[in-house]
Amino acid sequence: MNFRSDNEAPINATILKAIVDANKGFEESYGYDQYSEAFTEQCQQLFQSWCEVLPLTTGTAANSIAMTLATPPYGSILCHKHSHMNEDECGAPEFFTAGAKLIPMPGEHGKIDLNYLDQYLAGTGVHGEHESLPSVISITQCTEAGTLYTLKELNQLKNIKKKYNLFLHMDGARFANALVALDCSAAEMTWQTGVDLLSFGATKNGAMMAEALIVFNPNLINQIKRLRKRSGHLISKMRFISAQLQAYLDNDLWLELAHHANLMASIFKQQTINHIEFLHPVEANEVFCRLPLKLIEHLQELGFKFHLWPGHKDVIRLVFSHATQSNDVNQLINVINNYKNK
Amino acid sequence: MNFRSDNEAPINATILKAIVDANKGFEESYGYDQYSEAFTEQCQQLFQSWCEVLPLTTGTAANSIAMTLATPPYGSILCHKHSHMNEDECGAPEFFTAGAKLIPMPGEHGKIDLNYLDQYLAGTGVHGEHESLPSVISITQCTEAGTLYTLKELNQLKNIKKKYNLFLHMDGARFANALVALDCSAAEMTWQTGVDLLSFGATKNGAMMAEALIVFNPNLINQIKRLRKRSGHLISKMRFISAQLQAYLDNDLWLELAHHANLMASIFKQQTINHIEFLHPVEANEVFCRLPLKLIEHLQELGFKFHLWPGHKDVIRLVFSHATQSNDVNQLINVINNYKNK
Amino acid sequence: MNFRSDNEAPINATILKAIVDANKGFEESYGYDQYSEAFTEQCQQLFQSWCEVLPLTTGTAANSIAMTLATPPYGSILCHKHSHMNEDECGAPEFFTAGAKLIPMPGEHGKIDLNYLDQYLAGTGVHGEHESLPSVISITQCTEAGTLYTLKELNQLKNIKKKYNLFLHMDGARFANALVALDCSAAEMTWQTGVDLLSFGATKNGAMMAEALIVFNPNLINQIKRLRKRSGHLISKMRFISAQLQAYLDNDLWLELAHHANLMASIFKQQTINHIEFLHPVEANEVFCRLPLKLIEHLQELGFKFHLWPGHKDVIRLVFSHATQSNDVNQLINVINNYKNK
Amino acid sequence: MNFRSDNEAPINATILKAIVDANKGFEESYGYDQYSEAFTEQCQQLFQSWCEVLPLTTGTAANSIAMTLATPPYGSILCHKHSHMNEDECGAPEFFTAGAKLIPMPGEHGKIDLNYLDQYLAGTGVHGEHESLPSVISITQCTEAGTLYTLKELNQLKNIKKKYNLFLHMDGARFANALVALDCSAAEMTWQTGVDLLSFGATKNGAMMAEALIVFNPNLINQIKRLRKRSGHLISKMRFISAQLQAYLDNDLWLELAHHANLMASIFKQQTINHIEFLHPVEANEVFCRLPLKLIEHLQELGFKFHLWPGHKDVIRLVFSHATQSNDVNQLINVINNYKNK
Repeated sequence: MNFRSDNEAPINATILKAIVDANKGFEESYGYDQYSEAFTEQCQQLFQSWCEVLPLTTGTAANSIAMTLATPPYGSILCHKHSHMNEDECGAPEFFTAGAKLIPMPGEHGKIDLNYLDQYLAGTGVHGEHESLPSVISITQCTEAGTLYTLKELNQLKNIKKKYNLFLHMDGARFANALVALDCSAAEMTWQTGVDLLSFGATKNGAMMAEALIVFNPNLINQIKRLRKRSGHLISKMRFISAQLQAYLDNDLWLELAHHANLMASIFKQQTINHIEFLHPVEANEVFCRLPLKLIEHLQELGFKFHLWPGHKDVIRLVFSHATQSNDVNQLINVINNYKNK
Repeated sequence: MNFRSDNEAPINATILKAIVDANKGFEESYGYDQYSEAFTEQCQQLFQSWCEVLPLTTGTAANSIAMTLATPPYGSILCHKHSHMNEDECGAPEFFTAGAKLIPMPGEHGKIDLNYLDQYLAGTGVHGEHESLPSVISITQCTEAGTLYTLKELNQLKNIKKKYNLFLHMDGARFANALVALDCSAAEMTWQTGVDLLSFGATKNGAMMAEALIVFNPNLINQIKRLRKRSGHLISKMRFISAQLQAYLDNDLWLELAHHANLMASIFKQQTINHIEFLHPVEANEVFCRLPLKLIEHLQELGFKFHLWPGHKDVIRLVFSHATQSNDVNQLINVINNYKNK
Repeated sequence: MNFRSDNEAPINATILKAIVDANKGFEESYGYDQYSEAFTEQCQQLFQSWCEVLPLTTGTAANSIAMTLATPPYGSILCHKHSHMNEDECGAPEFFTAGAKLIPMPGEHGKIDLNYLDQYLAGTGVHGEHESLPSVISITQCTEAGTLYTLKELNQLKNIKKKYNLFLHMDGARFANALVALDCSAAEMTWQTGVDLLSFGATKNGAMMAEALIVFNPNLINQIKRLRKRSGHLISKMRFISAQLQAYLDNDLWLELAHHANLMASIFKQQTINHIEFLHPVEANEVFCRLPLKLIEHLQELGFKFHLWPGHKDVIRLVFSHATQSNDVNQLINVINNYKNK
Repeated sequence: MNFRSDNEAPINATILKAIVDANKGFEESYGYDQYSEAFTEQCQQLFQSWCEVLPLTTGTAANSIAMTLATPPYGSILCHKHSHMNEDECGAPEFFTAGAKLIPMPGEHGKIDLNYLDQYLAGTGVHGEHESLPSVISITQCTEAGTLYTLKELNQLKNIKKKYNLFLHMDGARFANALVALDCSAAEMTWQTGVDLLSFGATKNGAMMAEALIVFNPNLINQIKRLRKRSGHLISKMRFISAQLQAYLDNDLWLELAHHANLMASIFKQQTINHIEFLHPVEANEVFCRLPLKLIEHLQELGFKFHLWPGHKDVIRLVFSHATQSNDVNQLINVINNYKNK
């Protein structure tokens, strides 16, 4: 009954089998293996576009290398104030970029307020060399609040990035959940709406440790492998990362897993909406809701695991994953609804 | 009739003479000269305390080396969102600290909202290694809005820094203007209210190029000279910096110059207060006021120089300096008052 | 018939099984799992000492975080000129340490010339703040030439580090091979001879991707987890790294695997010594030998894989691993000896 | 009788007068003043070429910003092992470049062995992303040994830089001394022999604190002003730096001053050559000679100041400057020659 994080979920069986299957004899190291090559091709087919693909083991690495490609040290990164990059990576973007500045943007439900962003950017450029150079916008899809930028909003972002000559990065730690929810193509949600760099996450959705930085803009791949190497992220036995990623995409496994996670969240919301308050729209697999303190304690006593959300006393975050069982969800719903009915 | 910046003012004659006088024969280089030693002693007398003194040529260098001493790369710096460090140093603090994160704080009139600061800090620490470690609070005295933290507010800051085990830095680019305005001792405005590191500015108040990083906390001076050297800020003929600083402090020249600047601003405000709107309290030598657009154009045509303040259409900043002449101020007052009287 | 690198070898079956076994349900993420805790205890027993243990996925990460702990940015790192850190990590140590300087040391067979090191250090300190501060000695055990520092030499290093007040780091990418070869305890080869930080490698000796930074000096662990996080090296599903490391140590599997690799190298040397030239003593599992160009081509045609060693035309490197089969070694020996006998 | 360093010499009177003369009223700050503009034009005339000119206060800043322009963080810098950048800047190049690697080159008399350099470079490129990318060659003219690269050698360097697609940087802390000695044009010694970036020093040759980074390669000036700002090297009252530089070039003052310094060194050598040993050719204004220990002590007792050269017991460095008086030189010669004649 663990709703704490999709990071605590196990490896999907098909993906684990791919690791085991890849363990056959000797194989070229450092990413020059057959699995890595094949995964790049898979990505190009999935996104219907040329792209550079850099397998990695963490989302922070993917985000940070993306930033290194997209901003000089004297540049700035425009991101939501509650974005993972700004609040949960202990300064990794600043470290990798040698000191680029993150400009925290406001916005409801984890999404950058696009009017604010536009106005902010319109006001830059007057201080000359005294101010950091706006260089890249970074959004998270799904956001840290479990919400989604619609295709319309993504197109607005595309216009802003063009207007101010910036790059656009998407932190896709839960990319599959977003794609399933928007029900569009991977191309539509990325390069067709101006995304230059994508942190493509698989770990939260069933992999052991497998992420990829995918670059759609050919001007942003200079020495990308050296950037990976010098940050210690070049895995020698890379085949075991790429094999996960291959299995993840094969037969739409990734979409199936994300669909399950989203469905669980959706069911939870539908069944409890009359009893509890939701802080954000439930659009993918994360739920933030306000519960009576006693109910929270009661749930904990019953063994339900979830995060008490920082900054609030009575708000919890529930994450539904590929491995969440309907039975657990039903139990959770019952406890909540019965408690409220008292 | 230049009210654009105290950075555009000339060198005070006494300070220039000190440079000329220091040009006698050969002298030990790299700060091991008699002038530098004497200036350290002067500082210790002025502040009635032990302190480490590092002569420098820019305020950005002083601020940035201060930050390097006060925060690790994985730390965070709490400063006002409109502080010079956050907005006007092109990422220098991030560069020098190898990636520390500046957390921009809100607050009226250029001063950090101390309640907000307290609450923000109370909310940190729950994410463990995922979040940057709050390490230092940096304030500007006088602020970028020309206002002052009172001694009472400084004592509140002292409590906050103690409560959360942080260091406190003061960007004193206009330290003299603040001290004259608060009419307290240099000790009272610094280490007695918890200031660990002070960027002590002289350039804006009459020097050619002379600042000093003054450290009151003996735990924060480790390898401070190497930090200066490796950032390229070790001046070989240092005697010419230290000679300026000596002359600046001698016979209270610095206070006299700041007093003049503040007085000019004060007179301007008193004489025009009935005709124009002031955006911030006028507490030192900077004034931000709203004027009719036509009056702004009229002033420009008459040869008055000042900054149109970014983010507004009808707001100008006037800076009064040690070299501002009463005659110019009177002319400015007259033009404004006559214009309004029409 | 792959002798190119132990990085190309597969995962040992027992270690792979440990990964599969760890895939049971939900588990605390980010290293707060039972496997990670248990591995720390295992290490403390193995080294008969307190130690801090940081599981990682690459040796470059382990080395680089070690350097971040052991030297300030204005410090210097004394290492062999052909060390992995100096030649094969694309500047990772400089990146992680925010600019520390690697001072390349000469020395035969991949080992630092200890007299040279002593004399070099004796000459430092005269330039004051103009020179980098010697901070840490880093050695590789086994070295990049496949050789070993003897316990006597390690004790000499301990004296040098004490004499100059430095830290001592050991890059143990092939630690097991070294330990088996020296036939001493893990304690004797590390903290008892002054090693403060150890990069403990398992990947080359049978793991999928599993290394650990082990710190014996309690003064060098400050915020070590934040250093891992901000470099993107905090694996969310850490249990799968720690489970590998546990299985690696369990029942002396690691020693058994290393023993096999060393034995293969030793047999190769004994059987071919009369026919070919060895560039370095063969002390662990790597062999550098000079062969006639035509023999090299002949071997390649037969499907043998190995590295042509840069800087030479006729030198090859053979790496024998836990997965090297005696049959392959015998074939290799036969081809070489028969060729020479012609 | 100070022969310790040209850094200890006073300001030349004409240059000091230029500072005093520039102190007239208000003037645009941050380098947008008339003096800075005029100096750029002077440089373009002097070098008979377009160039970007960045006035600075230290040579370390000039060198370090040059490196930031010429190498990515994953790049390497090829320089003499005894170069100022490698030995005397406390890691400034590594800091500014965010971790580029300095590769120390051997070579007699402070000059890079060009054959070694060529061979070293020929051996790079085989490790792919594992090795740093050779990016820039940096030479010092005059070298730290007081010697000169001839125009022929500079042309050899030009060929090497072209062959390996590198940039070429010249640390010209004593550029004037070199130019006078080679008796060629400033263009011939710089961009005509392939120099892309020049650290142009004036401080050691009579200025108070005035250096300039001069860039001849238009591809290397991107955001150069932001690089200056974020390292804290943007001087607000820049007119006082540029006024020095103007006066330095006006009427060939710089050549006159350098000629005097070189002449003093030359006379010293000619007069003492039969009595003492010189370690390096005396080609500009620095002399390294071996003296009997007792003579060294005798000179010190008589008040002569000079550096005992690190790494030797009986070697001193004498630096002759624009301010060195013939009388002092003659006295020095007499003491040495009389001592030897005993």
